[in-house]
Amino acid sequence: METFKDRINFYTRLINKKLDQVVDKNNPASLYSPVQYMLDEGGKRIRPILVILACKSVGGEIDKCINPAVAIELLHNFTLVHDDIMDQDDLRRGKETVHKKWDEATAILAGDGLVALAYQCLLKTESEKIREIGEIFTNGILELCEGQALDKEFEKEFEIDLSQYISMIVKKTALLLMISSEIGAIVGEGSHAQRQLLKNFARELGCAFQIQDDLLDIEETSGKTFASDIQQKKKTFLFVHAINNASIADKNRMKAIYQQHDIRKEDILTVRNIFYSTGTVECAKQEVKNRIDKARSYLTQLPNSEASDDLKLLLDMILNRKS
Amino acid sequence: METFKDRINFYTRLINKKLDQVVDKNNPASLYSPVQYMLDEGGKRIRPILVILACKSVGGEIDKCINPAVAIELLHNFTLVHDDIMDQDDLRRGKETVHKKWDEATAILAGDGLVALAYQCLLKTESEKIREIGEIFTNGILELCEGQALDKEFEKEFEIDLSQYISMIVKKTALLLMISSEIGAIVGEGSHAQRQLLKNFARELGCAFQIQDDLLDIEETSGKTFASDIQQKKKTFLFVHAINNASIADKNRMKAIYQQHDIRKEDILTVRNIFYSTGTVECAKQEVKNRIDKARSYLTQLPNSEASDDLKLLLDMILNRKS
Repeated sequence: METFKDRINFYTRLINKKLDQVVDKNNPASLYSPVQYMLDEGGKRIRPILVILACKSVGGEIDKCINPAVAIELLHNFTLVHDDIMDQDDLRRGKETVHKKWDEATAILAGDGLVALAYQCLLKTESEKIREIGEIFTNGILELCEGQALDKEFEKEFEIDLSQYISMIVKKTALLLMISSEIGAIVGEGSHAQRQLLKNFARELGCAFQIQDDLLDIEETSGKTFASDIQQKKKTFLFVHAINNASIADKNRMKAIYQQHDIRKEDILTVRNIFYSTGTVECAKQEVKNRIDKARSYLTQLPNSEASDDLKLLLDMILNRKS
Repeated sequence: METFKDRINFYTRLINKKLDQVVDKNNPASLYSPVQYMLDEGGKRIRPILVILACKSVGGEIDKCINPAVAIELLHNFTLVHDDIMDQDDLRRGKETVHKKWDEATAILAGDGLVALAYQCLLKTESEKIREIGEIFTNGILELCEGQALDKEFEKEFEIDLSQYISMIVKKTALLLMISSEIGAIVGEGSHAQRQLLKNFARELGCAFQIQDDLLDIEETSGKTFASDIQQKKKTFLFVHAINNASIADKNRMKAIYQQHDIRKEDILTVRNIFYSTGTVECAKQEVKNRIDKARSYLTQLPNSEASDDLKLLLDMILNRKS
């Protein structure tokens, strides 16, 4: 296949074809229809593509990694269904969320079914290291739960420092990418050092992505709803950095705004101005840049191959986005 | 240890001790406090005890089966937390349910955490058959989801036949017992025939238990809330048998009653009378008896041992209850 884009399209078709086969029955419909709905949604399949590229970058074959790749996509969809209930989100990728289209009971059960389907797929992985792969996958689920719990706890707190914020986004955002890389490297029979490199790469990529996402929230032309993080009182990189670095007056101003039930338009602009005047925006941009550089430097330590080049292009693809 | 009761107490302490070690951290509290709360609740630990006895009955050691035993107890608690949200139940064993004591988001996440903890425990099982054990466990979760989905679907339906009802309770009630027996037999290195015997035993036990539970609903001295299944319009053995065997007049009477928003006290008595006059109660009692006999006959085919005797006593313990 000629170009990076061709290869990504090929992998995506492969993943979607396999996902189609995961659910081979329709009954009971109240379980399998919402599961199908989630899987039909046409996500970008970033995580399973990462499994494939990580596997190939250490010399592995695609046949060996397609099952764990699809397992991780199923796991990702499980977290989306349950997180959407917890966060009371009505829309995902422009479509109604499962609990909105059906109801909460149906969405809880669909999520639970997706976990089981994910393990079914994972257990089909041809590898002598199936126990270790299972452990990484399972520890990952627990850490995802911890990340979601921390995110919800932080909504009610002001005294969060940057290290706590980073530890939360590692669990909530970077972790699935880290599992993807690590499991890809294991089934590809990479060395221990290669596994660690790929895992570190994914951690930096995930954190860069999340902090960039936090930055996009205050860009009016980002394609996202302007300032929705501020409106939802999310404890983003911007908030955490600003509250720890602003003048006492600005800090009190922020607290007063975030303690209101609904945040007014003019308050959003006040908060945004504090994010700029405190140097928070500059610092966040620098943090994204540093983490991208770090992620790239890990990749350069892999053996030269089409797949390791593709990982660099995947990093660009993930980060060069406007929504 | 002298008596059956002593041995059950010993196993229960062992299981509780292991459960205490499962969660070795408190942070984030919003995840681990509700998990602890569920595990502290002092359930009867029937399923893990079944794993232990099944393992011992085929000659296995308790050290080999304690991890999968605890894994199944964790899985059971996961289903309780999520089912209680879906069924909007406020109380479990006299205590507030997790979503009532905290909130739904917390309960969804606690359930998800319990699944991960269950797999962590399961993956510690010392057995070359870890992949097969994982598959049985995972297929079980999916069938549990199917059982719960069918139960909810049946709430809105009248045209259910007994075979559909049985297939639902096999998934919803018997399945965790079946997995317990089967995994116990595998780690105990029982023969294929022994695995099948123990699995069949658990299926009959589970079905007998559920139909007996359905019968207890219309006994005023059962210790359970009288007629709560009728009030909740549950499609029990009694309902399904009666609707398929009652006279046309009684059938229409039942339909009219079950289509009301709230069922009145006198309607409950009408339904109960139909359950008696149609021969439904008699038939349900016979069904319980037949299944208990079948369950016992499977056990007699196991090699004679203290553990196989204990399985018979466990069956009596589970079925000789008034609530």
